[in-house]
Amino acid sequence: MNYYGNPMTRLIEELAALPGIGSKSAQRLAFHIIHMPRDEVAGLSGAILEARDKVRYCSVCCNLTEEELCPICANLKRDHSVIMVVEDPRDMAAYERTKEFHGVYHVLHGAISPMTGVTPQDIRIKELVTRMDDTVREVILATNPNVEGEATAMYISKLLKPLGVMVTRIANGVPVGGDLEYVDEITLSRALEGRREL
Amino acid sequence: MNYYGNPMTRLIEELAALPGIGSKSAQRLAFHIIHMPRDEVAGLSGAILEARDKVRYCSVCCNLTEEELCPICANLKRDHSVIMVVEDPRDMAAYERTKEFHGVYHVLHGAISPMTGVTPQDIRIKELVTRMDDTVREVILATNPNVEGEATAMYISKLLKPLGVMVTRIANGVPVGGDLEYVDEITLSRALEGRREL
Repeated sequence: MNYYGNPMTRLIEELAALPGIGSKSAQRLAFHIIHMPRDEVAGLSGAILEARDKVRYCSVCCNLTEEELCPICANLKRDHSVIMVVEDPRDMAAYERTKEFHGVYHVLHGAISPMTGVTPQDIRIKELVTRMDDTVREVILATNPNVEGEATAMYISKLLKPLGVMVTRIANGVPVGGDLEYVDEITLSRALEGRREL
Repeated sequence: MNYYGNPMTRLIEELAALPGIGSKSAQRLAFHIIHMPRDEVAGLSGAILEARDKVRYCSVCCNLTEEELCPICANLKRDHSVIMVVEDPRDMAAYERTKEFHGVYHVLHGAISPMTGVTPQDIRIKELVTRMDDTVREVILATNPNVEGEATAMYISKLLKPLGVMVTRIANGVPVGGDLEYVDEITLSRALEGRREL
């Protein structure tokens, strides 16, 4: 209902169309926006359109970037001989936050899923294959530890091994800080299989 | 950290600065936005700036509008002799959704609160007083049923009664669909005081 005039009603509708934002949140956000300083509102409005227009995929790893190369591929201090394969840019960001990985990434933008009709051609696998040359020492498969992620890791592994590159998979096991009582059986079995001598 | 290049990082930061949106939600929204059709993104971006620039207060009731008069004040089918006084445009919208009130509104944009330094001069009380003329039959005080709302209702009542206008207050009582067991004592007492013969 148009209680507040057209511009406000339109803003509430646009915000409510975003994922995870219901009509109450949209209303609260809209009231916040009309009371923000004008330059901050212009900044928000501009950032939305700029991101949509400028963000594209890195020509090497398919991460998001506004340049030809993403900040990680353009960084000569990173170890370009080790490539970690992830499903999504957010998985890459999660590993970056650990500050433990100093190689480069490859972002698939999805995982193979016969259930939802996602085939190997629908994700960035051929871009990964074209990166394989003598400089690549290791490819670490860090797809999600679920059915689609495992199938994708298996598919990529079969594709890359004949090219003579070392292919590894991140470990399954109990999450740090977790409580064994609440960990599922498959994870417990994998943690047992993957046990290491201390 | 700038994992995704500048435009994406800036968008995530702008979104995370909004109330009720944490960094995870901001990231999810930003990924959604860069995958939306461009015309929808332009619509969202434009709606934000347009609302900030065009929304102003109705010259009669101080509701939000982009015109001189809000949709309710401009509606000649409404009963302009009955004015419901609310604290916030959202309270007005809540009463509109009941479809039971056919008069017009006055939006105070706040309530008197000595604790937080809000005085009668800080809210739209004088705009309400200037509306008092022979055509006004009743002023219904629908400020919130809390300390600030009651104080505001009391203040307005004392101001308007000498002008010869009927001033009423919305009823306190048990909320419909509630469970008496969980209703506080003051509300139960008010519901008893306000009992009506069936």
